[in-house]
Amino acid sequence: MPTELVAALDIGGTKIAGALVDRRGGILVRARRPTPAREDGETVMRAVEEVLAELAAAPRWASVRAVGIGSAGPVDAARGVVSPVNIPGWRDYPLVERVRRASGGRPVTLVGDGVAMTAAEHWRGAARGHDNALCLVVSTGVGGGLVLDGKLHTGPTGNAGHIGHVSVDLDGDPCACGSRGCVERIAGGPHIARRALDNGWRPGPDGDVSAAAVAAAAHAGDPVALAAFERAARALAAGIAATAALVELDIAVVGGGVAGAGGVLFAPLRRSLREYATLSFVRDLTVVPALAGTDAGLLGAAAAAGGPDREPAAPAA
Amino acid sequence: MPTELVAALDIGGTKIAGALVDRRGGILVRARRPTPAREDGETVMRAVEEVLAELAAAPRWASVRAVGIGSAGPVDAARGVVSPVNIPGWRDYPLVERVRRASGGRPVTLVGDGVAMTAAEHWRGAARGHDNALCLVVSTGVGGGLVLDGKLHTGPTGNAGHIGHVSVDLDGDPCACGSRGCVERIAGGPHIARRALDNGWRPGPDGDVSAAAVAAAAHAGDPVALAAFERAARALAAGIAATAALVELDIAVVGGGVAGAGGVLFAPLRRSLREYATLSFVRDLTVVPALAGTDAGLLGAAAAAGGPDREPAAPAA
Repeated sequence: MPTELVAALDIGGTKIAGALVDRRGGILVRARRPTPAREDGETVMRAVEEVLAELAAAPRWASVRAVGIGSAGPVDAARGVVSPVNIPGWRDYPLVERVRRASGGRPVTLVGDGVAMTAAEHWRGAARGHDNALCLVVSTGVGGGLVLDGKLHTGPTGNAGHIGHVSVDLDGDPCACGSRGCVERIAGGPHIARRALDNGWRPGPDGDVSAAAVAAAAHAGDPVALAAFERAARALAAGIAATAALVELDIAVVGGGVAGAGGVLFAPLRRSLREYATLSFVRDLTVVPALAGTDAGLLGAAAAAGGPDREPAAPAA
Repeated sequence: MPTELVAALDIGGTKIAGALVDRRGGILVRARRPTPAREDGETVMRAVEEVLAELAAAPRWASVRAVGIGSAGPVDAARGVVSPVNIPGWRDYPLVERVRRASGGRPVTLVGDGVAMTAAEHWRGAARGHDNALCLVVSTGVGGGLVLDGKLHTGPTGNAGHIGHVSVDLDGDPCACGSRGCVERIAGGPHIARRALDNGWRPGPDGDVSAAAVAAAAHAGDPVALAAFERAARALAAGIAATAALVELDIAVVGGGVAGAGGVLFAPLRRSLREYATLSFVRDLTVVPALAGTDAGLLGAAAAAGGPDREPAAPAA
């Protein structure tokens, strides 16, 4: 009898990735489309359906028993709908029902992308073995998820751990979400790059003004680039310390493109955390880079869908 | 056979309250001392012992089977010690063992005061029937506690829900905890009063410069007093919105002496919450005053100690 599989979808503002995932988190088949994020909702859905069709063309599709979706948020897992900030064509979009129809009626589980990444890090990454963990994805946006008392804490609608829209500067700059001074408004990649530019950093001959280019400059010792990452690190530290004060954490796991900057982010992050996380029960909190890598979204979606290795063993044939 | 009772202690930076509490949350005997918060640890402990001695003088003391303590935090429930920010003489102070000795060896349960208040509000107050709630105590300090998925979430050391030391202003004023811009540093009673004084408010002939006096001035329309409460409300709103983004909440319950200011706090709090809690899954969050009143700390300490109404019925004589 063949091993049962889960089909996983990782839906973001840039790409829609899909995979067939086995019991141990191995990825057997992949498919991928760019997200037509500025198009209408049906056009975006067509890209999702193309990814599913490509997966369904694989012979192993017959072993797929469920579909897991990690989507850019906010999501509403209770109602099966999504309203991703970066995909305006989807507002209360019935993604769960549409994916169910496109996958031959298989059961579908929906979580936010931050929760998916957290499921992956807790299953196979840096949060493994930790009962109280916050996992962050720091890239264009800032997402996250929580493990509390050893279990994924999704909240009723699947959005818990939404650290990107925690305000750490109540008088700060307006955020796209409508609030102000949010962690994402300071530590998201485009905001790091803008801060560097505003303070006089200039890109190299290639004209690259991404956060990655600012990170390269910081590694080369550019003080303005270093200061931009230090500011992002402070915002992340304040947000992580806030989470620790609210739920008690023993580890914070930081992944995503901006975390790829490495030491220029992690060194000031650990320094700032000592400044903000002062109470006895939060002082020993450690911060580590994520391990699950770019497949975290897919692995986490698979884990959230029951996780191939979490279901009871199949009965003998 | 007489009903069994619990002795409850509510220990804060201003007062030490004690009571004998029955199975239904009725308070039968009370005792109270001011907290000698600036004195050495043994002097503070003497005040606790005096409260216990007064309770022990009551004939019903013989029916007390356990002691519950709600203490200003941080506490360490796992080790039985406390280090309240506002009681410098107590650092890793072995409160559980000292109270056990002072109560004839009865079993002692320790929780943070915010967790105690939350237990009371979830048991008999405004959070009753809510599965995801944040309860706040806003007085000299700002404490809190969480109900998640229908259960009290204490965290491993009993400090979860510590909203007072969530930084909502990462560049803000230094807080007694060592961090900066904490909710308590802005919304705690003495900080409200200081802000009003710094901005030109002057007390009446009685010289009362408490937050309650500022509240009275605010009710009379004093713009500086109103602004001081509005600032506190903004900090509380940012902290409540942060908590909702992190764990998903359906209600926030606000109690404590400063909450007694009523509309001059709650009106700007609800207004500010609309500004900070913008995401779809936090937008419907409601804020209500606590119901358990000034006895919340005592009732919650009793509830945490097994709760007189939570133990199995006494066997028939």
